[in-house]
Amino acid sequence: MPRTSPRKPVAVIALGGNALAPAGESPTVYDQFRHARQSLGPIVELARSGWDVCVVHGNGPQVGDELVRNEVAREEASPLPLGVLVAATAGWIGYMIQQSLENALMRAGITRQVATVITQVEVDPADPAMRKPTKFIGRSVSPERAAEIEAEGHVVKKDGHGNLRRVVGSPPPKSICELPVIRALMDAGVVAVACGGGGAPVYRHPTLGWEGIDAVVDKDLAAAVLARDLGAELLLILTDVDAVYADWGTPTQRALTRLTLDDAVEMDRNKAFGEGSMAPKVRAAIDFVRRTSGRAIITSLDCGQQAVRGEAGTTITATETA
Amino acid sequence: MPRTSPRKPVAVIALGGNALAPAGESPTVYDQFRHARQSLGPIVELARSGWDVCVVHGNGPQVGDELVRNEVAREEASPLPLGVLVAATAGWIGYMIQQSLENALMRAGITRQVATVITQVEVDPADPAMRKPTKFIGRSVSPERAAEIEAEGHVVKKDGHGNLRRVVGSPPPKSICELPVIRALMDAGVVAVACGGGGAPVYRHPTLGWEGIDAVVDKDLAAAVLARDLGAELLLILTDVDAVYADWGTPTQRALTRLTLDDAVEMDRNKAFGEGSMAPKVRAAIDFVRRTSGRAIITSLDCGQQAVRGEAGTTITATETA
Repeated sequence: MPRTSPRKPVAVIALGGNALAPAGESPTVYDQFRHARQSLGPIVELARSGWDVCVVHGNGPQVGDELVRNEVAREEASPLPLGVLVAATAGWIGYMIQQSLENALMRAGITRQVATVITQVEVDPADPAMRKPTKFIGRSVSPERAAEIEAEGHVVKKDGHGNLRRVVGSPPPKSICELPVIRALMDAGVVAVACGGGGAPVYRHPTLGWEGIDAVVDKDLAAAVLARDLGAELLLILTDVDAVYADWGTPTQRALTRLTLDDAVEMDRNKAFGEGSMAPKVRAAIDFVRRTSGRAIITSLDCGQQAVRGEAGTTITATETA
Repeated sequence: MPRTSPRKPVAVIALGGNALAPAGESPTVYDQFRHARQSLGPIVELARSGWDVCVVHGNGPQVGDELVRNEVAREEASPLPLGVLVAATAGWIGYMIQQSLENALMRAGITRQVATVITQVEVDPADPAMRKPTKFIGRSVSPERAAEIEAEGHVVKKDGHGNLRRVVGSPPPKSICELPVIRALMDAGVVAVACGGGGAPVYRHPTLGWEGIDAVVDKDLAAAVLARDLGAELLLILTDVDAVYADWGTPTQRALTRLTLDDAVEMDRNKAFGEGSMAPKVRAAIDFVRRTSGRAIITSLDCGQQAVRGEAGTTITATETA
């Protein structure tokens, strides 16, 4: 495969779970294939206009289903740990995206191979997030089953609805283990699908080497670290709202077209963004813009193409003139 | 990542299901990680002695468990089709091999990245194997459930024990869709893990592009096609017996050290090899040796290192002097 030269600008695109499984639906895999096909417009557009593209995707609804299958069938098939389930969903969601995207690129007359790379993401096992786990996973369980799960070494807490559920840590990603692999593929002109579901979290054991850890990594934060370390020009976070809003949910709510780094940090400090929803996306954007000369855009799938042209979404840059 | 030059010899290693989940065990994923660590000796040895290596692995026990989980929890989470399950197991088994192999290489002082590529394998939807499916998958079901499964468009038959089970076609692989990706990685010095579980079978739809198909691909045949198209010097098939045997299971059984192509074809024609076990491996070896100038070796995991040096296993070559 010939190397592309000169170097093209690099975009990392973080696809929200809603890209494949919209909120409120319980989609079959066939629905998810259909959603994938519909979601790929912005990616095709970027590839067409000369970008090297890496796709990061969520796995919330899909790993939720896997946890249900593993729990329900636990007497008949030994359950898999969370990191292994992340790798499994990265495999099959990657397959779905890769097939759909290759077909979409082909129809657009673009000859680009797409490849899914199973990705490990380094985290710090001593991170405070590991001591105070806050990320609920799987469905609610009975008090009896909760006791069993705790006896297996896991943590169970009551969620916001008073339901007992497993809870794991979500430490920030430090580095992407397969970065050189992803870079080699992008250098060869391949569209890489990587860090699926945030990547399988691992840490460096002093004698054993890399070891998995029972945790999840936020996929937007993983995308930001990947974009930073790839030297990307653009981090595009595609979600289910068209922009970052000020005063969200109040009569004065308004979409923010541009945000400087300082403004974004200040607003986040003032808790302007929803904790389980927009805040981690804004923080991922801040993290990327702070450490690079690139820009970050947060917008919806539908507005992705306009947003790249600066006509929609919220663009976050280091300064107003960037 | 620098390209390695000059070109190193290429080996494709097909790891049997027993590498991770030995027959007769019902291993947890932790057992499977342990087996993976123990199985990687021959791969480390080849990498150390200057080979570029691609690993293909089976998924029999693992996809069997996935089918059980999907079946048992079918009321609570919509079941995934077979091709998607193959991609899922390729994701998580790949993660397991990649982590274990990277650690093993590191301990051996070899700086090599390992990457899992989710692989699609092209098959012919009109292949006779699709009209007369013979590959049993999943566990036995009741007559009532069999009727439901048939109503969903699947085929159910009685297996050799009289149990009703789903049966799918296992058509021969025509090509490996991600071949350029795998080659680009190997050119960059990466050990690729590809075609896991034989790869997700796909065909080229005249208007839609690549589409998945409900089938499975034999992983040894996929490895042979991959080895052929990579221009590999060696196809190493690691299984649970140390060599190909003549008169297997009789008082005169003897291990065959060398086999020419003609001898192997003749013996296979005379049904010398077990149909669900050794025959497909010998056919994969025949397919590779016939179309290349390489050699194929069939041996056990334990004998892999000796076999590469010609001191164990069965080596199949085009002629006696090859």
